[in-house]
Amino acid sequence: MKSTREKLLDIAFDEIYHNGYANTSVDKILKKANMNKGSMYHFFKSKKELGLAVIRERVNEYIVGKYGALLTYEENICDEMMKLIKNRNNFDFSCGCKLNNMMQELSPIDKDFKEALEIVYLKFENIIEHVLDKAVAKNEIVHNDTKALSLFVVASIEGCLGTAKKSQDGNFFQTCISQLELLLNSLKK
Amino acid sequence: MKSTREKLLDIAFDEIYHNGYANTSVDKILKKANMNKGSMYHFFKSKKELGLAVIRERVNEYIVGKYGALLTYEENICDEMMKLIKNRNNFDFSCGCKLNNMMQELSPIDKDFKEALEIVYLKFENIIEHVLDKAVAKNEIVHNDTKALSLFVVASIEGCLGTAKKSQDGNFFQTCISQLELLLNSLKK
Repeated sequence: MKSTREKLLDIAFDEIYHNGYANTSVDKILKKANMNKGSMYHFFKSKKELGLAVIRERVNEYIVGKYGALLTYEENICDEMMKLIKNRNNFDFSCGCKLNNMMQELSPIDKDFKEALEIVYLKFENIIEHVLDKAVAKNEIVHNDTKALSLFVVASIEGCLGTAKKSQDGNFFQTCISQLELLLNSLKK
Repeated sequence: MKSTREKLLDIAFDEIYHNGYANTSVDKILKKANMNKGSMYHFFKSKKELGLAVIRERVNEYIVGKYGALLTYEENICDEMMKLIKNRNNFDFSCGCKLNNMMQELSPIDKDFKEALEIVYLKFENIIEHVLDKAVAKNEIVHNDTKALSLFVVASIEGCLGTAKKSQDGNFFQTCISQLELLLNSLKK
């Protein structure tokens, strides 16, 4: 059975994802968790502490869980990366990206959130950079700035997910991301 | 002198941009406008009506004002487009894109906002598609799906602006968007 702390994090993660941080109510989280304020404050002293833990644990797990597999690929690296990027089984396009939503809402208004989110985002970029470096080392692609390219790969994933979200329609994501594939294919030897 | 209605729109546009729609207070807008609720309700029956007018007028003007110039280009179309995309004089990278911010916050939660924002976003995409079609017609680039490419150009602009916003640093935008240029250059004849 999940601990009380884990249950609180699960519910808070879900509430923040669906409503945004500002619109997330601690009372609603407590009601869903069937818990009172005192029990929550034993684990998290404030809504903000709960939000930061959601980022450091749940959002982080989500990104590493989805993209970490890329680090094990040894062949057809770019094609496999694109396959994983395009694979959106059970993805909720109408709500968008769990990481980007929080970043766009919170980075400009709170330094602690900005820093916590940046750490996760940087992990995402580093995974992609590592994969691109390997593709270069294995002579799959030619590129002299995999740092810039990794920034762009992540930014365009977020941009394409945003396009689907604005229309509440996942087809836009697939059409849009096909052009990232075109860029990667143009770099192939 | 600006009319009362225009003044309200200017202030509301600024408040929504800096705080998000949910966190925007009508009372604060009225205070800044030196106006009472009755005078505002003469023009806008609710916060939502004011928000919709901000999208249809201010956000729309902003996008058409920045990107509409592209429609007049007849030579070096892709290079000129990239120049305009990269030109971010006085852009507030820490707050991000006026259109994308509202889209990401409001599209999933309100149908009227979603529709109003989609109209502006579609206008943005249509301008880019028109420019790309012209670049194909003039034999600058080869591409068989300028619709998908226009979606991607806009999505990657939004993604790159988001990357800058998450770090509160415009340099990320320039590094990131350089890779869109790489894609366009790869399509040149």
